[in-house]
Amino acid sequence: MQIPDVDPRAFLHPQALVDPGARVGARTRVWAYAHVLPGAAVGTDGNLCDHVFVEGGVRLGDRVTVKSGVFLWDGLTAEDDVFIGPAAVFTNDRTPRSGVRRAEWDRTLLRRGCSIGANATILPVTVGEWALVAAGAVVTRSVPAFALVLGNPARRTAWVCRCAERLAFEGALASCACGRTYRLDGDTVSETTADGD
Amino acid sequence: MQIPDVDPRAFLHPQALVDPGARVGARTRVWAYAHVLPGAAVGTDGNLCDHVFVEGGVRLGDRVTVKSGVFLWDGLTAEDDVFIGPAAVFTNDRTPRSGVRRAEWDRTLLRRGCSIGANATILPVTVGEWALVAAGAVVTRSVPAFALVLGNPARRTAWVCRCAERLAFEGALASCACGRTYRLDGDTVSETTADGD
Amino acid sequence: MQIPDVDPRAFLHPQALVDPGARVGARTRVWAYAHVLPGAAVGTDGNLCDHVFVEGGVRLGDRVTVKSGVFLWDGLTAEDDVFIGPAAVFTNDRTPRSGVRRAEWDRTLLRRGCSIGANATILPVTVGEWALVAAGAVVTRSVPAFALVLGNPARRTAWVCRCAERLAFEGALASCACGRTYRLDGDTVSETTADGD
Repeated sequence: MQIPDVDPRAFLHPQALVDPGARVGARTRVWAYAHVLPGAAVGTDGNLCDHVFVEGGVRLGDRVTVKSGVFLWDGLTAEDDVFIGPAAVFTNDRTPRSGVRRAEWDRTLLRRGCSIGANATILPVTVGEWALVAAGAVVTRSVPAFALVLGNPARRTAWVCRCAERLAFEGALASCACGRTYRLDGDTVSETTADGD
Repeated sequence: MQIPDVDPRAFLHPQALVDPGARVGARTRVWAYAHVLPGAAVGTDGNLCDHVFVEGGVRLGDRVTVKSGVFLWDGLTAEDDVFIGPAAVFTNDRTPRSGVRRAEWDRTLLRRGCSIGANATILPVTVGEWALVAAGAVVTRSVPAFALVLGNPARRTAWVCRCAERLAFEGALASCACGRTYRLDGDTVSETTADGD
Repeated sequence: MQIPDVDPRAFLHPQALVDPGARVGARTRVWAYAHVLPGAAVGTDGNLCDHVFVEGGVRLGDRVTVKSGVFLWDGLTAEDDVFIGPAAVFTNDRTPRSGVRRAEWDRTLLRRGCSIGANATILPVTVGEWALVAAGAVVTRSVPAFALVLGNPARRTAWVCRCAERLAFEGALASCACGRTYRLDGDTVSETTADGD
């Protein structure tokens, strides 16, 4: 008996293209002109909007949103709860030439809950948990957890809460209006919310 | 009797996807792999190029050009004669997180005749009449009428005519080679052409 | 007898759209949701990835790679061995307005072997042989051969080898680890490799 690649509770638009051998989890929606290649693994409760392309080596966790016009390449992993805004662009080769194939592609890791803004460009880096890459940013270096980065090249200009609002640190501590609390230790922010999950 | 949603004089490419309940005006062309959702309203004499996506809450006036690879989200309105260049990117959420839906999306208003350059990124703002957003600009604040803005973040570097050529003000007045005339009052440009429409 | 427009050795994905009158050379692959218009000429051994659009006036040489989500407009020519990264954006009109058609479109020339980075924006310019446009760059002026340009607007920050690695000039001469050699003369780099092709 073969385990079905596409969960029967997934929704595939009639114009979606999910190749045999692609895995799509329960309640994930795949919309028109999206194309998921053999070998790709997409978790549950996700959303792959129109014109999304997912190469076979890609791994997406649960509750991942991929807005329209995003192409995900071999070497990319997105953990649970990641948001990828429309037309955000990823890469897996810092020195591309036509006809040159790498033995191994450069890797991109999107940690849990981070958000990639619309039309951002992401070189092969790690984006930390709950970080927020602003729309139009060009990210050339890894991004710490809870950082807001923007510009070309992208620079950190603030820290943000898990709810995406900016944090105002007083000394080493910050409280967000949403109730979550954070500690700043050097260049590292960690959540200290008592009942956080 | 039901009024047809798609005017019989519109052109739909065989590979275009116009969902029932989408309205498309006379002589508007919808090209391959474009997708217009139920509820969207597109005026007459428009052009939706390949790979364009239009969400249900979008309103487009007459003679609007949308080049390839543009995704228009709920909350966006474009008035008559707007030009949206290829792969220009719009947004309706300044603090996106996966799985978070807003009660109301942030709004973008493109005023009559403005042009959005190729691959520009537009945060939820108003772009004034006949303004020109340069290719690759990242627009974070509203743009005045007749302004040329460029860069990341976008800054105003010049004023432009309705014909899109730069205006050279002598004091408060400017005449364009095309015959149109303008007045600069503080940070506001207005057209003073005698027989302008 | 009519010469077939699409070489029988080309690969067309079932969801690719190659219009009658488009020419596609041997061993070139055209992937899902790509659209090639009548009159376009694509050489041999090329790769047009998902969601690529090629207008009728475009000319592509041999071994040209066009990654996903790239739209190529009338007025663009790419010579042999050019690499165009994902979602790179081209233009053929520096002063666009809706409804205004030019007698002649502005021209873009991509010289042999150059690479256009992901999500770069290219105004109508010439990009020199083996130049490397960085991801996210906004190119407003022509780029010399072997130059690396980056930023918005794009500036030259280094010279690169045909293999895409950076060159370290000692005086007027540079040797790359790959074995190729170069001469710098004013603002011009030329290859001096003894057995170069």
